[in-house]
Amino acid sequence: MADPRFFHRAGPHSLGSLAELSGARLGNAANPAQMIEDVAPLETAGPADVTFLDNRKYIEAFETSAAGAAFVTEALAPRAPEGMALLISREPYKAFARAAQAFYPQMPPQPGRHPSAAIDPSAIVPEDCAIGPHAVIEAGVRLGRCCAVGANTVIGAGVEIGDDCRIAANVTLSHALIGARVVLHPGVRIGQAGFGFAPDPGGAVKIPQLGRVIIGDDVDIGANTTIDRGSGHDTVIGAGSMIDNLVQIGHNVVLGRGCILAGQVGISGSTKLGDYVMAGGQAGFAGHLTIGSGARIGAQAGLMRDVPAGESVIGAPAVPLPTFWRQIAVINRLARKKDKG
Amino acid sequence: MADPRFFHRAGPHSLGSLAELSGARLGNAANPAQMIEDVAPLETAGPADVTFLDNRKYIEAFETSAAGAAFVTEALAPRAPEGMALLISREPYKAFARAAQAFYPQMPPQPGRHPSAAIDPSAIVPEDCAIGPHAVIEAGVRLGRCCAVGANTVIGAGVEIGDDCRIAANVTLSHALIGARVVLHPGVRIGQAGFGFAPDPGGAVKIPQLGRVIIGDDVDIGANTTIDRGSGHDTVIGAGSMIDNLVQIGHNVVLGRGCILAGQVGISGSTKLGDYVMAGGQAGFAGHLTIGSGARIGAQAGLMRDVPAGESVIGAPAVPLPTFWRQIAVINRLARKKDKG
Amino acid sequence: MADPRFFHRAGPHSLGSLAELSGARLGNAANPAQMIEDVAPLETAGPADVTFLDNRKYIEAFETSAAGAAFVTEALAPRAPEGMALLISREPYKAFARAAQAFYPQMPPQPGRHPSAAIDPSAIVPEDCAIGPHAVIEAGVRLGRCCAVGANTVIGAGVEIGDDCRIAANVTLSHALIGARVVLHPGVRIGQAGFGFAPDPGGAVKIPQLGRVIIGDDVDIGANTTIDRGSGHDTVIGAGSMIDNLVQIGHNVVLGRGCILAGQVGISGSTKLGDYVMAGGQAGFAGHLTIGSGARIGAQAGLMRDVPAGESVIGAPAVPLPTFWRQIAVINRLARKKDKG
Repeated sequence: MADPRFFHRAGPHSLGSLAELSGARLGNAANPAQMIEDVAPLETAGPADVTFLDNRKYIEAFETSAAGAAFVTEALAPRAPEGMALLISREPYKAFARAAQAFYPQMPPQPGRHPSAAIDPSAIVPEDCAIGPHAVIEAGVRLGRCCAVGANTVIGAGVEIGDDCRIAANVTLSHALIGARVVLHPGVRIGQAGFGFAPDPGGAVKIPQLGRVIIGDDVDIGANTTIDRGSGHDTVIGAGSMIDNLVQIGHNVVLGRGCILAGQVGISGSTKLGDYVMAGGQAGFAGHLTIGSGARIGAQAGLMRDVPAGESVIGAPAVPLPTFWRQIAVINRLARKKDKG
Repeated sequence: MADPRFFHRAGPHSLGSLAELSGARLGNAANPAQMIEDVAPLETAGPADVTFLDNRKYIEAFETSAAGAAFVTEALAPRAPEGMALLISREPYKAFARAAQAFYPQMPPQPGRHPSAAIDPSAIVPEDCAIGPHAVIEAGVRLGRCCAVGANTVIGAGVEIGDDCRIAANVTLSHALIGARVVLHPGVRIGQAGFGFAPDPGGAVKIPQLGRVIIGDDVDIGANTTIDRGSGHDTVIGAGSMIDNLVQIGHNVVLGRGCILAGQVGISGSTKLGDYVMAGGQAGFAGHLTIGSGARIGAQAGLMRDVPAGESVIGAPAVPLPTFWRQIAVINRLARKKDKG
Repeated sequence: MADPRFFHRAGPHSLGSLAELSGARLGNAANPAQMIEDVAPLETAGPADVTFLDNRKYIEAFETSAAGAAFVTEALAPRAPEGMALLISREPYKAFARAAQAFYPQMPPQPGRHPSAAIDPSAIVPEDCAIGPHAVIEAGVRLGRCCAVGANTVIGAGVEIGDDCRIAANVTLSHALIGARVVLHPGVRIGQAGFGFAPDPGGAVKIPQLGRVIIGDDVDIGANTTIDRGSGHDTVIGAGSMIDNLVQIGHNVVLGRGCILAGQVGISGSTKLGDYVMAGGQAGFAGHLTIGSGARIGAQAGLMRDVPAGESVIGAPAVPLPTFWRQIAVINRLARKKDKG
């Protein structure tokens, strides 16, 4: 059970209602009226909890789980321990996510402005927003309905933010237009001047950075991630994109819809990603590249060239996935040979 | 045109004055009296805007640009569309930078101290400085003339800062002596204790970190970058160095003048860089290395050895650039062979 | 001598007392009554200072050092310049650390609450804690004795913190239980929701992140490092672990006791490290891995598989250290061959 100091549970929910809200199908032995009290991981779930199996690494934990119910695929259902009610789903992780949302629904922010917040009189801050202690909201800012702004967060002059956004503590925002339902985690930096200058013997000549950051609806941006504003064009983060912690996004970068960037990815200036591009942790992109929609970039990949739509690449310099594994096989074989002879 | 919510334009400027301030030469057809209202990228510039062509990737956009004028090299000038006035320069990016500075001059900070700022009475804060809401300036701090200190920024006891510095919001500074015209972007951390301890079965024995961070004039440090103070010697950032976002600089590191570090570079303790060293994104330096002046370190390079002055290296472990490309060629050839036979 | 603007020195100490507190043995010529005033690096130490030699790179500096005394191994003692008093130790760095702690003892925080701090009436904040300006301490927080909370730091509802913790400025904490003597450097983010969602054509389905972050005693966490809370299980950082700057630790990651992670390391979700694992800078770990106790992970290594206890690996994909060097040797040989013929 989630620690009640930090989480507030709704429910219980019947197996039948969990099946319905998650799109899962009840297994043969399951009783739709059985009440479930909570969600829990395989190892700690008890008879009143629902859990899930998604990763084959955890089949053993599944086989010995004491959970009362579990989301699982048809294929793995036979591995369930006796007495466990099954919620059969082609996507058990997603189905479980929907169940977990039912037990732990996101609460609207508690409206109010902490008296220590510094809110410019020209800023538009709807009454149903929650503004934390020491937050700073500068001139001309426009917040949407039902937004939360965390403690010590600074929203620079002119920034516009859509409805239902959750901006955590210690965030800095400037030169940005932000959609609805956007989540910004602590320490996010958006809109600062990018790395733009011309080297010169008399000292770097800085180029005024005159673009903005445009963030689509339903974007999620991880802790301490940095997104520079454009230099002339805008930096754009497409709707539904998910960005992990400590990611660096340079000026004029464009992400399409639904891109997924894992932790510590770095994208250099003016590189453009299509829709639904995925990048593994610590992958790095040179500047001025074009990455096609649906491309999958492996962890720690080093991209020096464009990537066609749908291609999977990895390595540094990045190559298609089969090429990479052939390279690794060749190197391993040669190194073994050297070892023997 | 830059979004007026975020940027305030000066001008217009005549072609002749733009040529003069940028060191460019007017092309044959250009009328020095023609007035230019703004700067803009190739794709969005109109007849009253000046743009630039610097990267051959964008020749096509140049050929179809509606810009009234453009900075361009002699060599690429013939690719200009009809009717575009040309400002010929050997360094069009730098010339454009100077023009853009004329249209968007940096404003001095608006003097004043937000009443919520916590400024120790012993701190020296000239009247022409701008101190943001909830900023904290501790005992014995000395600020130069015309400095800006952003909201929620914390300047620790004894820190000294030169004239005309711009310190953004949510920055933390301690144990540091900082030159003039230094720019610190949001979330920068300077002066905390470095990673110094001796492992011991009874728990790591921490070494008191007794050095400082010394930052030269005209240094620019990117968002969420971290620079630890020295352990005994100082950590030093040479004048004119440009450091991008999310860079990690360990204790006792020394950067010479005019070094350029791209995003997510990491430099381990006690490594010393000469002047004008450049490092691409995500490059990593082991500790106690010496990197000669003018060395160029490729993106994602892994440096385990010293690098002579002027050398270009890349790869992990890093090797000279030609060696790297030979290695890549060999691996590719072998992997292709394996594929065929 | 450490800059008195930033550091306050205790002492002097006699050679005899330094030998005793550090476990070192005085060399033949050393007079136990000789008074030492300060610690200093080899290059800047004078006759009243004690220094140390630990890294063979600095033997030359040792031979020409003007230090009055030095910690050094038996083996390198003969390299000492004439007249230098020697403190012989098998671990001179650790012995020096203990001496330096005697000259620069850590002071307890100066008790008090800045009037601008926003402390919820339900929070437990002992009188001997030091709470900085604009700090935010939310409902139900419990601080231990003698804790320092820096300016603009935000401690979220329900967080518990042990005795003698030092939390720097601009830190964000939530959903966390923290041990005693923990040090959090500026900009640390602990407890935010991890990167948990199921991709879906209609938009990512976020999984409520219902775990916590559990941090053991004596842990040290570097500037701008991010540690996400667990998704169901907890994220756990074992006692005595040392984590450098800009490290990313995903949800459900478990670190055993005394792990050491250098700067910019990234650990993906649900990966488990045993005790005393060491990872070099920028190393990356895929998710759901098991890394055995005492494993050593090289800088920039890319871990895609489990690592047995005690093994040293490096490279991407990571391989045992001897294999890596064989691979490098083979590639170098082939690339040279190609060059010649």
